[in-house]
Amino acid sequence: MSNPSLSSPSPTLERLNQTLEHEVPALFAALSPLGRRVIFPPDIPFQAAQARGKELNATIGQITDGRGGALRLPSLARGLAGLPDERLDRALLYSPVEGIPELRRAWREHQRRSLPQELRGVPSSLPLVSVGLTHGLSLVADLFGGEGCSVAVPAPFWGNYRQTFTTRTGARVVSAPALLDGRFDGAAIAQALAGVPAGEPAVAILNIPSNPGGYSPTVRERETLRESLIAVAETRPLVVVCDDAYAGLVYDDEIPRHSMFWELIGAHPSLVPVKVDGSTKEVSFFGGRVGFLTFGVDPESGAADALESKVKCLTRATLGSPVAASQVLLLEALLSETLDDEVEALRRRLGRRVAVLRQALDGVDRNLLRPLPFNSGCFALAELPEELELSADQVRLHLLEHQDTGLVSIGPRYLRIAHCSVAAEKLPELVHRVEQGVREMTRK
Amino acid sequence: MSNPSLSSPSPTLERLNQTLEHEVPALFAALSPLGRRVIFPPDIPFQAAQARGKELNATIGQITDGRGGALRLPSLARGLAGLPDERLDRALLYSPVEGIPELRRAWREHQRRSLPQELRGVPSSLPLVSVGLTHGLSLVADLFGGEGCSVAVPAPFWGNYRQTFTTRTGARVVSAPALLDGRFDGAAIAQALAGVPAGEPAVAILNIPSNPGGYSPTVRERETLRESLIAVAETRPLVVVCDDAYAGLVYDDEIPRHSMFWELIGAHPSLVPVKVDGSTKEVSFFGGRVGFLTFGVDPESGAADALESKVKCLTRATLGSPVAASQVLLLEALLSETLDDEVEALRRRLGRRVAVLRQALDGVDRNLLRPLPFNSGCFALAELPEELELSADQVRLHLLEHQDTGLVSIGPRYLRIAHCSVAAEKLPELVHRVEQGVREMTRK
Repeated sequence: MSNPSLSSPSPTLERLNQTLEHEVPALFAALSPLGRRVIFPPDIPFQAAQARGKELNATIGQITDGRGGALRLPSLARGLAGLPDERLDRALLYSPVEGIPELRRAWREHQRRSLPQELRGVPSSLPLVSVGLTHGLSLVADLFGGEGCSVAVPAPFWGNYRQTFTTRTGARVVSAPALLDGRFDGAAIAQALAGVPAGEPAVAILNIPSNPGGYSPTVRERETLRESLIAVAETRPLVVVCDDAYAGLVYDDEIPRHSMFWELIGAHPSLVPVKVDGSTKEVSFFGGRVGFLTFGVDPESGAADALESKVKCLTRATLGSPVAASQVLLLEALLSETLDDEVEALRRRLGRRVAVLRQALDGVDRNLLRPLPFNSGCFALAELPEELELSADQVRLHLLEHQDTGLVSIGPRYLRIAHCSVAAEKLPELVHRVEQGVREMTRK
Repeated sequence: MSNPSLSSPSPTLERLNQTLEHEVPALFAALSPLGRRVIFPPDIPFQAAQARGKELNATIGQITDGRGGALRLPSLARGLAGLPDERLDRALLYSPVEGIPELRRAWREHQRRSLPQELRGVPSSLPLVSVGLTHGLSLVADLFGGEGCSVAVPAPFWGNYRQTFTTRTGARVVSAPALLDGRFDGAAIAQALAGVPAGEPAVAILNIPSNPGGYSPTVRERETLRESLIAVAETRPLVVVCDDAYAGLVYDDEIPRHSMFWELIGAHPSLVPVKVDGSTKEVSFFGGRVGFLTFGVDPESGAADALESKVKCLTRATLGSPVAASQVLLLEALLSETLDDEVEALRRRLGRRVAVLRQALDGVDRNLLRPLPFNSGCFALAELPEELELSADQVRLHLLEHQDTGLVSIGPRYLRIAHCSVAAEKLPELVHRVEQGVREMTRK
């Protein structure tokens, strides 16, 4: 869609949907009413794309020098002085709605750079740029959610899935209890969706490494999970959203680091994997809001074009275009030869925290606090024993008031420890305070 | 909402809505079903806000050094080297969902800095940060749009209002023909809404300076417009969205530069002005995506708190949080003593283009092209005479193919010239080519 030809002014919605129905029938069947009716409209950005390269181009409403360069206000441009001069203008001017082409290509390479040999041939689209991962999820929710749609999420899960899917689109989030006696249960999603009438499309969310669990399944657990998802796809079109926010942050050598997305592509004709990832955690750029949405289809396919048109319509309707400044900063980083080493150093640093935290949690009184296994991501979970009759939020408020310590409470009895924001040497003290806080409450 | 107390963990939705109904009854009456049901949930960002300042804070899932500082990847941070060291971390880490407090205060001052004496006392909320102006509009659409809601827009208008209001929320965009024989008609909105049953809330959009018109009404036209909106508010709750994207870019001295927003606050109990603005055009930061949403209420009021909670829920559901990096860059610019001069220099530069373009358009054959009055913003419109029986899009495609020139076509017979992206010395040639292109088509 980036170089629309003049002779065929704009594809019709009917043709776009026919292409999807033909090339990826399960994906088409799973589209929401909104997902079916969106198409990038032939208005300003479309017309501007057609005018690219013309000698006189008076299409776009951005202020330039007349040759495509920004009119830089020194007070604003100063902060970006670390960028090469030729890239500074791109940071100040609009991004294409689908994202900056070089960045999309660079991220696709980044995504595929360390795939196991047997997965290197699987197709994946050129990633579409979103404004952070939540925006990627909300695009998925717009495309595949909607009133009454069932969205299965392994619990405990990140609460914002409810806002993104339910509050906005009216979808029904189905909690899939994925911790059985503290162990990961790969069949939880299939069980949670068992009550949905056969043939009705559904969505499942995989968040590996997980938030709040800080857990990535083992090779065997992944296999169970994959087989279980394929079994669901036997009964209905199943969109599997791989929320790969914490991709790469894995601290145990025997745990696979690549996204389940790659193993799900082509696994079953009715299984539709979608990848949501970004630079927030992978490159530690929390303030940049650069995410990506990737489909398991060939970049040159009609399906890729059709999905790009639909996503661009949604992005334009909600945000206009994604953040050029952050995209340029991320592109600079991806082009740097030292980036991989910097990311690896960060992973090792977090790995040390995880080791310290594990040791500290190993020593806690199981009558007060039951740590769950964790091996990846930014978090660890501890469960309050049911017999204490304390809610996680009661404990959280007690810790704030009496232990000068902040944690996040989840569900009825989980406490989430974000080791990503605590120095290693403070973690034993933190665990001590949590234990102490719970003890105080049991004595009341 | 930025410092939630521990004793009252989170306000209920019922209480929030009661506050709005009591303090701003017309605004409450105009809320969409979605607008009524949203409230910032007491999950991670809420709990993290409660934990701010605690000695051990393990709430937020962002990677830090344990003392709130970013773990900067050199390849990423390099591009932002122009920022003072103490602000670099804020650019790399998450923004609060409502925006960075100093920026919100600085933008409020920026908004109010050149108000006429008689308007300096009007209340306005602390602006909420959005991801560019389109996101601000989509927040308004979520709050006040929805299935069947009438949204009146003076025509010709920016086509993306359709995506933002209709595609996303199902609202009905009502075109209000605001050009009568090439002159601005301040009563167009009232006429367009006349058919909507009395008592039913409605939305009107004011885009001054306008896109695509490049027009700002005169003092007298503003007065007509204001009175006409007040008359509508006699019959129904009326949300007036001031899309101030091009605020300040006014080139005729007798045309008021301040937003109509300020004159509408308090104008009628049933009139609800909302301001959408941002740094995209005002500070020429197209790639930054920093917008603001402002209500005509006191920053310390319960209504301001309630609206903030609702907007934060919508932002979190769609985007997580706004862009910290761009906010920090904008804050740096706003703190600069030379910014006003830089913006003024830019305005004068565009003013010269406008003068050149006017002169060129004055000379065109009115049988081929009829320029409309323009005095502000980034654009000028020319109308194709009806008797030529040419559509604007036919002419646009002809100009691309035969004159190496790109314009935007709008509605049946308008061509939009974005002088903001063409150098002054090229504008006469551009006008010549458009005239020439139309002439060629009439000879076929």
